[in-house]
Amino acid sequence: MDALTDLARIVGEDLPRCHALILARMDSPVALIPQLAAHLVAAGGKRLRPLLTLAAARLCGYEGIRHIRLAACVEFIHTATLLHDDVVDESQLRRGLASANAVFGNTASVLVGDFLFARAFQLMVEDGNLRVLEILSAAAATIAEGEVLQLETQNDLSTPVSRYLEVIGGKTAALFAAACEVGAVVAERPAEEAHALREYGVDLGMAFQLVDDALDYTADQATLGKTVGDDFREGKITLPVLAAYAKGDAEERAFWVRTIEASEQRPTDLERAMTLIGARGAIEATLDRAAGFAAAAQRALAPFPDSEARRALAAVADYTVSRAS
Amino acid sequence: MDALTDLARIVGEDLPRCHALILARMDSPVALIPQLAAHLVAAGGKRLRPLLTLAAARLCGYEGIRHIRLAACVEFIHTATLLHDDVVDESQLRRGLASANAVFGNTASVLVGDFLFARAFQLMVEDGNLRVLEILSAAAATIAEGEVLQLETQNDLSTPVSRYLEVIGGKTAALFAAACEVGAVVAERPAEEAHALREYGVDLGMAFQLVDDALDYTADQATLGKTVGDDFREGKITLPVLAAYAKGDAEERAFWVRTIEASEQRPTDLERAMTLIGARGAIEATLDRAAGFAAAAQRALAPFPDSEARRALAAVADYTVSRAS
Repeated sequence: MDALTDLARIVGEDLPRCHALILARMDSPVALIPQLAAHLVAAGGKRLRPLLTLAAARLCGYEGIRHIRLAACVEFIHTATLLHDDVVDESQLRRGLASANAVFGNTASVLVGDFLFARAFQLMVEDGNLRVLEILSAAAATIAEGEVLQLETQNDLSTPVSRYLEVIGGKTAALFAAACEVGAVVAERPAEEAHALREYGVDLGMAFQLVDDALDYTADQATLGKTVGDDFREGKITLPVLAAYAKGDAEERAFWVRTIEASEQRPTDLERAMTLIGARGAIEATLDRAAGFAAAAQRALAPFPDSEARRALAAVADYTVSRAS
Repeated sequence: MDALTDLARIVGEDLPRCHALILARMDSPVALIPQLAAHLVAAGGKRLRPLLTLAAARLCGYEGIRHIRLAACVEFIHTATLLHDDVVDESQLRRGLASANAVFGNTASVLVGDFLFARAFQLMVEDGNLRVLEILSAAAATIAEGEVLQLETQNDLSTPVSRYLEVIGGKTAALFAAACEVGAVVAERPAEEAHALREYGVDLGMAFQLVDDALDYTADQATLGKTVGDDFREGKITLPVLAAYAKGDAEERAFWVRTIEASEQRPTDLERAMTLIGARGAIEATLDRAAGFAAAAQRALAPFPDSEARRALAAVADYTVSRAS
């Protein structure tokens, strides 16, 4: 049984309840909204982020129902981000199916994304806890900042690794962190535990995105469930590219400058990029960093006594890295 | 002195304070965010929506400072919507300057719009009043629903007028309503007054959008500050088109079907559309409806005793309609 299945088992009925709430709250009298939203729900997804909220609340001994609404809120923020990413990236595949914007058009993706964002905020307002509202609204702003920063680094091989880490800290880790932290807040646990869960979320999110960025140059399309080589075609600056560029000889650097900075790509260039990234150890370098963050995520759980929930969350950190191999 | 200048005079220092807060809170370490935001701020705009919040609070005798933050929040929601509209509409002009997406690209417009949405939510969370949070987050969801509904009606001449009114009620009037209502809520006035200000805002927003839709077929580009004929080119279903289509003869109807439904447009078609809309009284019909809503907005102010603020808000309703002539 993989770590996510185990996490789902531990939260029990909370996950189907969260799923039902997601379906109920993505409904609207405006037919295109549930249509497009259903397309995303049908595409599935791992529900990793809402699972984190549910499991974090469980870890903190919470026995109420507020965490279900907040888990749905987290998934809505994530789904809205995906919809806007699809527009941005002109990606044709998402979760193995045609992306929403390929089917419904960019316009619908932007607007339904806005609706889901707004719905996410309504869900947190219904919770009514100001600390929860602060955490989740700050995460939404940080995600957007990370996405804009990513846009600034696009096609720029002089991007320092630290800047790349800032990008993924914003676009990915911020929501992981918020998803985990609110689990402690609804359980009214001391600040130390909320902080520990936040750290766990940040580190897990960093590991997750690093692995995602490695998979974009290694996975076969069926495994990845999205178009392989998207990052390459968009000139996105990720650690595999930065590492291969840093270690490349003059001829290799010229290749990267042409394909990533000048966006001049030929049909065989993706294969060449994958070969160079492999030969220069850039995948290992990326996965090593991911493993470092995963280990940090596990250490962040130290304030919590041993429990089924704690073991499951620790296993998720391992899973995040192992899915790359 | 026009009605907006008068409104600005009445709120006194609140407007520059709101403007300063907008500048401070659109800042970010991610350089592209303040750059793009400054482009919009430089483009000016009338600040009508934040003025409504400031004036509504004043009408309710409010003497604190919370309304300034909420006015900034309202403007952020509006600005985010504009950025996403520009993507959607492929409009090349906004407020008389090149639209943000023409200068910065669609991607940046989507992402910076997301940032401003998130910032708006942070501003309301800082206010911390749950009723305020409910009103503004519901408005954001309703705006998105209105925009999606508009997308559904696009190119569809069989759209009933009632559906068109629903669209503008969502995409425009919902934010006007929320902007006004929160003025009463921060002043802790009775529900009757909050309701009255909400009604005023709805009716004012309806009048405003109807006039905007008329101007798209009548104004010269300099007056309108945006590309004339945008609605026509996009096949947007507005009352001028519905009214001209309803009264047109067979040949005219064929013209509308070709240009709006089939999106087959020739260089002289916009001029022809403007002529037909004029000849069929469709502008008068639209402006008559707008005048009806403006009058309703003024009646909605009845629960408030006579005051400078009430007279100024009533005058804004007249101004909204008169800018069309």
